[in-house]
Amino acid sequence: MSLTWSLKAFSLGVVAFSLSLELLCWLFGRLKHRGTLNKVLIFPSEVACVEYLFRPNSVGLCFCGLPHGVETSFSHLLRYILSASSSLDLCLFSFSNIDLKRAVILLHEKGVTIRVVVDKDYSAITGSQIGCLRKAGIRVRCEADYVHMHHKFAVVDSRLLITGSLNWTLTAVQCNRENVIITEEAELVQPFIKEFERLWVLNDPARVYNNL
Amino acid sequence: MSLTWSLKAFSLGVVAFSLSLELLCWLFGRLKHRGTLNKVLIFPSEVACVEYLFRPNSVGLCFCGLPHGVETSFSHLLRYILSASSSLDLCLFSFSNIDLKRAVILLHEKGVTIRVVVDKDYSAITGSQIGCLRKAGIRVRCEADYVHMHHKFAVVDSRLLITGSLNWTLTAVQCNRENVIITEEAELVQPFIKEFERLWVLNDPARVYNNL
Repeated sequence: MSLTWSLKAFSLGVVAFSLSLELLCWLFGRLKHRGTLNKVLIFPSEVACVEYLFRPNSVGLCFCGLPHGVETSFSHLLRYILSASSSLDLCLFSFSNIDLKRAVILLHEKGVTIRVVVDKDYSAITGSQIGCLRKAGIRVRCEADYVHMHHKFAVVDSRLLITGSLNWTLTAVQCNRENVIITEEAELVQPFIKEFERLWVLNDPARVYNNL
Repeated sequence: MSLTWSLKAFSLGVVAFSLSLELLCWLFGRLKHRGTLNKVLIFPSEVACVEYLFRPNSVGLCFCGLPHGVETSFSHLLRYILSASSSLDLCLFSFSNIDLKRAVILLHEKGVTIRVVVDKDYSAITGSQIGCLRKAGIRVRCEADYVHMHHKFAVVDSRLLITGSLNWTLTAVQCNRENVIITEEAELVQPFIKEFERLWVLNDPARVYNNL
């Protein structure tokens, strides 16, 4: 075999090797992007029993009058919240839904770090569950600077964003037309993490009282 | 050159060619994904003059007392709405913001197809701009079936989703802590388009009166 042909074969080999590497990167990128969660939940949700989400071993053992074994927008929402394994940051205008409170307290008892920022006025209205969260030892900070702290978002494990039009109330879940976006898209998640950290620091009681 | 080497060189050529094709697809995919808009606007917005968005030729000619030449969350929001070239679908709980009404009417006058679904109770409150939209000839349908039609989203050209916690009011824009997501992510946009079409058909007056 001539030297020219050896060189040609070698060059082709190099090209094939580098392109294989690019292909692997591409496949990895594709798989990574395919794995990025983007989901929309539409409300009102059907009303169904969600006991199995709190006590997975109780499937088939709940005798309440609600339909069982039905996946609803609300059960999906609960599932995403309960998927938190290290942290849950909540920034909520209004929080009176008992099942959502139960989910948050369950996570707190499991050792998940919970932080809550709420609207000062709405944290004290009838039915608000903010008092229960505080009683359970969860850190809650109130925002009073603006007319309303109207956000309604949660960040799970600094990775998953849950946001939309839905206030965390029973009426919103069962009676209103609402939407909730669930996304891991970093370009969407990061600004919400930044906003949460900003409001968390801004409403630190130590800072607020020092400025009085 | 032996036949074996020719075959080897040929195989390598084929591999290199197919991998080059894959590489081109990857590059195309990357560029396409990079072009997908994902943006978050945080409110309250600074207050600034937005006249230049309605009359691009008026830059430098407005003498109102507001700051000029300042980009704010609200000016970004207006820009995305005004980018509509064929259609704008609005699904809004409350609509009393004068600048947003002006933007919608401007688009209507330019020939953009506008459809609006609103909450029946909130469409009639003091300051609501729904009457002005109707007077301008824009089709508006009212949702009265549920406690609240609490959505607050817009779909621009069946492609761009604008949604979040922000009601289309002056208080929400200037005084509340709010968020708006702007996205072209199809997995997020499509369910909102589907929800809009569903509510549009459900609240068709012909259908509603036939069912009375």
